[in-house]
Amino acid sequence: MSTNLGYLGPPGTFSEEAARNYIGTYRRRLVEYSTIPEIAEAVAAGRVEEGLVPLENSLEGGVAVTLDLLASRDGLQICRELIHPIKHCLLALPGTGLHNLKVVASHPQALGQCRQFLDRRLPGRSFFPTGSTAAAALKASGEKGVAAIAPRRAAALYGLDLLAEDIQDNDLNSTRFVVLADQDHLPTGDDKTSLVVAIPDGPGSLYHILSYFARYHVNLTRIESRPARRHLGEYLFFIDCQGHRLQAELVRLWGELGRESSWFKILGSYPRFC
Amino acid sequence: MSTNLGYLGPPGTFSEEAARNYIGTYRRRLVEYSTIPEIAEAVAAGRVEEGLVPLENSLEGGVAVTLDLLASRDGLQICRELIHPIKHCLLALPGTGLHNLKVVASHPQALGQCRQFLDRRLPGRSFFPTGSTAAAALKASGEKGVAAIAPRRAAALYGLDLLAEDIQDNDLNSTRFVVLADQDHLPTGDDKTSLVVAIPDGPGSLYHILSYFARYHVNLTRIESRPARRHLGEYLFFIDCQGHRLQAELVRLWGELGRESSWFKILGSYPRFC
Repeated sequence: MSTNLGYLGPPGTFSEEAARNYIGTYRRRLVEYSTIPEIAEAVAAGRVEEGLVPLENSLEGGVAVTLDLLASRDGLQICRELIHPIKHCLLALPGTGLHNLKVVASHPQALGQCRQFLDRRLPGRSFFPTGSTAAAALKASGEKGVAAIAPRRAAALYGLDLLAEDIQDNDLNSTRFVVLADQDHLPTGDDKTSLVVAIPDGPGSLYHILSYFARYHVNLTRIESRPARRHLGEYLFFIDCQGHRLQAELVRLWGELGRESSWFKILGSYPRFC
Repeated sequence: MSTNLGYLGPPGTFSEEAARNYIGTYRRRLVEYSTIPEIAEAVAAGRVEEGLVPLENSLEGGVAVTLDLLASRDGLQICRELIHPIKHCLLALPGTGLHNLKVVASHPQALGQCRQFLDRRLPGRSFFPTGSTAAAALKASGEKGVAAIAPRRAAALYGLDLLAEDIQDNDLNSTRFVVLADQDHLPTGDDKTSLVVAIPDGPGSLYHILSYFARYHVNLTRIESRPARRHLGEYLFFIDCQGHRLQAELVRLWGELGRESSWFKILGSYPRFC
């Protein structure tokens, strides 16, 4: 029971590729879920030890879902981050060439990310948007003349040939995943901490909160605001900063935030991914 | 040529519903595109006068795509914002009841947003993720026992019955769209302005930039950071604030940002949606 990792399926998506990378040679079983809230529930209920969910620049949908879950649900902490490069491949049935492709299927974001390649090498083809890159590979495996944009691994899974590799417009394309568990990570000396702070709407209120981060020389690596769901006129700020939540300057910061914000929640500390 | 609105198709998505709402009774033609970059290109090339794209909490994919496009592409301005409520419905072929449904199809985020309804009223059913809510409605129209989660309008478009309405877990569920055009909106007295600022990585650097907003009493309504694609160690901050870019205090702010940031770009001023 305790050596399972929940991930966003089906096999053949970038989430599965990232999950396989993460478990590496450890003896862990991957457990497939079809939505992010299902993964969070499975972790909270102890059905899986850890769950891997996308947080930023996801192809598989739902970054906002992950943020809102972390803000609202108790019993979940971030214990790791993982930055996974998105390398798109063009896959089709064996024997297919670029010249006899009629349709390119993929997740709408993947189609958007390979725009220059598609314009240059496959002008005039029609697009077929799918719910995941795996669904695109499945479609390509059943129809001649249909190619899928999907991770390399989907070729083997769906019996497809690799027509082109690394076809994304931007080489810096990557997705940041986090691993959810019932507790976060112990300090390693090179850590990050995620938190969410509720701040009333009004000029200078975010500035006021950030003044405490500046005072303790805490570096922000990410900030994102979202309207609070429960209280209108209040904003939630999702902040990632350098350091572990147990470090002295961060412990002092939590004291200030407790006094100065309407509400805040530490989402976990974890080793910085490099 | 000049009375067309580009939107993210196909018909039967929340994007189409929002586009129909936006044009209202004006004589405009909706032009369907399958990706956000295609809409942006059509506007920039003058093939459509305006394009409607999702910016926050989208069901149809790709908020990051919209932000990156606005930051990198010249000749596009935001001239309107539009907040569209997401009201999910459960649709199936006429004569179907909840008891004989076997599969629920929809965009993965829509499935996630109706989780409580699905758990309570349709426990044990399997999910079929699709690329859009329209694709789910199409699937439901061809198979008995399959229901789609989709906007109400998809029922009429695909010949489906409405089994349940407003089935989303959270009543505050909405998507913020923006209208892209070749120029932004004139001042109305109750406006917002979107901008993107590049800031070097380091403690206090965002705080320093926000000090100018606080000094001129400019209220931030949204902030989101994204790693800059071109320069590592630099962050892009997407900021929405109250006021029109031509107002005196904002004009002074632009002067400060020009001196203090590595780079900034005003994405447009537009009437606040109410």
